[in-house]
Amino acid sequence: MRLRNVKNKDIIMNSSNYLISDYKKYKYPFNNSNPLCIEIGMGKGQFIIGMAKRYPNINFVGIEKYDSVLVRALQKLENESMNNLMVLRMDAQYIDEVFDKDIDTIYLNFSDPWPKDRHQKRRLSHEVFLKKYDKLFKNGCHIIMKTDNRKFFEFSLKSFTDYGYKIRDISLNLYNDDIKDNVPTEYEEKFHNLGYPIYMVDIYK
Amino acid sequence: MRLRNVKNKDIIMNSSNYLISDYKKYKYPFNNSNPLCIEIGMGKGQFIIGMAKRYPNINFVGIEKYDSVLVRALQKLENESMNNLMVLRMDAQYIDEVFDKDIDTIYLNFSDPWPKDRHQKRRLSHEVFLKKYDKLFKNGCHIIMKTDNRKFFEFSLKSFTDYGYKIRDISLNLYNDDIKDNVPTEYEEKFHNLGYPIYMVDIYK
Repeated sequence: MRLRNVKNKDIIMNSSNYLISDYKKYKYPFNNSNPLCIEIGMGKGQFIIGMAKRYPNINFVGIEKYDSVLVRALQKLENESMNNLMVLRMDAQYIDEVFDKDIDTIYLNFSDPWPKDRHQKRRLSHEVFLKKYDKLFKNGCHIIMKTDNRKFFEFSLKSFTDYGYKIRDISLNLYNDDIKDNVPTEYEEKFHNLGYPIYMVDIYK
Repeated sequence: MRLRNVKNKDIIMNSSNYLISDYKKYKYPFNNSNPLCIEIGMGKGQFIIGMAKRYPNINFVGIEKYDSVLVRALQKLENESMNNLMVLRMDAQYIDEVFDKDIDTIYLNFSDPWPKDRHQKRRLSHEVFLKKYDKLFKNGCHIIMKTDNRKFFEFSLKSFTDYGYKIRDISLNLYNDDIKDNVPTEYEEKFHNLGYPIYMVDIYK
């Protein structure tokens, strides 16, 4: 992803009611015990904001490490008043220091595929991360992934099933299926419009 | 598949050294204890004959219920002298009456997708068949599937992982990968040439 600097970045970040900018200060930010779903790598936020609007009785936390895209999400939220969404500025590697047996679903949308073999431990579907995720879930483990990257999707299916996950639902061409419930990311819209198939898998263990 | 009648069908079948035409009379047909691999639904036989030629130290049994295609495979074998291949005329539903803890790998190539929901128990990747396969394997369970049918492939991935299989290898576009070891079926060549992606998955448990 090409990351542009945003004017007034610091002002936007400092004035947002949605941002937790230091993950070490994270405390459960909602005033109810509704289900909690997180998106790791929320980017510019279209997915998680759309989900939070659609499902007011579910709490959402969007996680993003790059300020340059995170600030775009905060801009979208400037005129919103939602109490079921927060944005957490953090690298995913620290995720198990923040959440503890309180998550229902993890969304991994168009994560960086890290195509080089020597970088595979950085992929969010690598065993390194699956082990971290184990500690986060309230009940069973539940992950929903979307990507347009075939090799990354194939790698992820191997990694997930090798780790004991089962496939509840899968689509190898999401936009050729009946997807009325789908909330697209910005990236997804762009690459779907360019004719790329979008892959989706819903796994549990 | 459109099935044509073949002239001299009975003569070809009666004179073939490769055919076991009554599955109730099947006895282990090889004079060694090399690994045994079977293809359920061998069709016109290009895959299993190609595999038997390529791997002389593996034994192969091709299973087919339709005489009209089975006889095409026997015609291909008329001038061959292989001792590691047999053709078994049988409906797959009886497979657990024939084999017993002696199979290494099951190949499912371009199986009938039975697209209607009410027919799903006929799909060779349905739990009904996975239960039968359990009784066939010598050591671990090992299945390799290829298909061009996306919905059938998606169904199969769910069914396999739900039944405890893990994915060792997967390709969502086999001909865009490095597939020097791939032996194509007749159907596969035709549909690949028409531009359809070919799906492959290698599973174990």
